Amino acid sequence: MMDHPSSSTETVAETAAETAAAWRARYGTDLGPAEGLAALDAPLRQMLAHRSVRAYRDQAVDDRLLEGAVAAAQSASTSSNLQLWSVIAVRDAGTRARLAELAGGQAHVAQAPLFLAWVLDLSRLRRLGRAQGVPTGGLDYLEGFVLGAVDVSLAAQNAAVSFERNGLGLVYIGGMRNHPEAVAELLGLPPAAMVLFGMCVGYPEPAELPPVKPRLPQAAVLHRERYDSGAEADIIAAYDAIFTGSDSARARGARPWSHGAVHRMRGPEALSGRDRLRQALHALGFPLA
Amino acid sequence: MMDHPSSSTETVAETAAETAAAWRARYGTDLGPAEGLAALDAPLRQMLAHRSVRAYRDQAVDDRLLEGAVAAAQSASTSSNLQLWSVIAVRDAGTRARLAELAGGQAHVAQAPLFLAWVLDLSRLRRLGRAQGVPTGGLDYLEGFVLGAVDVSLAAQNAAVSFERNGLGLVYIGGMRNHPEAVAELLGLPPAAMVLFGMCVGYPEPAELPPVKPRLPQAAVLHRERYDSGAEADIIAAYDAIFTGSDSARARGARPWSHGAVHRMRGPEALSGRDRLRQALHALGFPLA
Repeated sequence: MMDHPSSSTETVAETAAETAAAWRARYGTDLGPAEGLAALDAPLRQMLAHRSVRAYRDQAVDDRLLEGAVAAAQSASTSSNLQLWSVIAVRDAGTRARLAELAGGQAHVAQAPLFLAWVLDLSRLRRLGRAQGVPTGGLDYLEGFVLGAVDVSLAAQNAAVSFERNGLGLVYIGGMRNHPEAVAELLGLPPAAMVLFGMCVGYPEPAELPPVKPRLPQAAVLHRERYDSGAEADIIAAYDAIFTGSDSARARGARPWSHGAVHRMRGPEALSGRDRLRQALHALGFPLA
Repeated sequence: MMDHPSSSTETVAETAAETAAAWRARYGTDLGPAEGLAALDAPLRQMLAHRSVRAYRDQAVDDRLLEGAVAAAQSASTSSNLQLWSVIAVRDAGTRARLAELAGGQAHVAQAPLFLAWVLDLSRLRRLGRAQGVPTGGLDYLEGFVLGAVDVSLAAQNAAVSFERNGLGLVYIGGMRNHPEAVAELLGLPPAAMVLFGMCVGYPEPAELPPVKPRLPQAAVLHRERYDSGAEADIIAAYDAIFTGSDSARARGARPWSHGAVHRMRGPEALSGRDRLRQALHALGFPLA
């Protein structure tokens, strides 16, 4: 699945061809005359080639690879160095089976040899404040939640890059927010901590490796100087055509992206219980003032 | 600043020594007998060596590097492929100067040749829903905001890795949340879109490259099977000593981490106006139901 590091024997022409192929898989369009991008190196092509992996070989993930990924995660930016996150490495099959249920019956959570619960963790500073006899009321605002949500997301993505660099595959599990209180209790979280998302990690089963999923054209997401959605309807129509024609969508008989995405957010009944996330967070010790 | 890709002439011993050095800079401790980690390759050592860069050479960032970073960003995981984010590339000096003010007077926002405003963008699906005559009420819940916050954070971190891989430096700017409405107006955002954070990008000024900032020991953030803060007090005391002794903290005369971090979250008066983030989001079209 993963590219290998560039070696001195790799020619410029080979690099350009590989980059063009990675670009085509991601966008469904030709790279065009972007000479600079031909110099994208193997690690960047690897990011371009990301796909969510939900089927794993029966092979454990070495603890050294986990520690390397956590080191990458801790090296990501963190607001004011507050480090408002933790991660719980779950290998126990019983716990993974229960988490799979809580996520809405996602079998890959039970199947993956390693499951990471990424914790938005305001509890550490609360404990420190209590020990010092100093208030930490700033954590009680929505801003405290946002600081933690960004911190843990940046960290997790560095870990994801590290895992993929080492030949592992992964998928994020937003279903941890379907039943946040039950997840918190199962994993022994203190108040002011919650699992923002999970991550299944394992060696991809080659026969079940999904195709790369095309994303929106850059023109739809990259704006210059000011936000401009003037050409958006045409851009998204073009994307709908690329998307429905892709291996990824054809394998699932997917409807056009713009219809599927809107349908996914049609109302609270489509949120798998997450329409009560605010109440759940209140119960878990996040006032969100 | 950045490592170069491993070449076939790099010996295993050199790799191990470089990894140990990167580890020591990040944690202030020896790597120890973690044989597997000696195999960390150059891209992973580069992530370990991240530091926030706030002083830049007078050299523009080529558009091809921006497009490469956006391709990396779009290749990050996105919940249900909803792609709930946009990014605005700001090169205009006047806009950057105004953003620097809005961020609380951060001169590097005005000095960096490229500023990226990372937008938590629920407006695209709202527009599509309106065009289709279909409701998108799911976006109005706190869950919609969380989906977008995670999406844009994962995307931005892939871009960060891509930029650093190409020799650029960067710093995230949470100060975009000090005055969210003014930032949204300046950049022409529609309702249901907000700049979650910014990112200054440029070539680092070598004379002003800050040292790597030590992070908490892994034992403080990495839990096994269940959350366990039993040994936390001792672990953080050890980190406080490493932190205050680090080049990063000594240059600023920083107090122990545990005291500085708690002080930072002491109450609403320390949040630079972000204690009203919830009200600001309501005004920007995020009901957060």
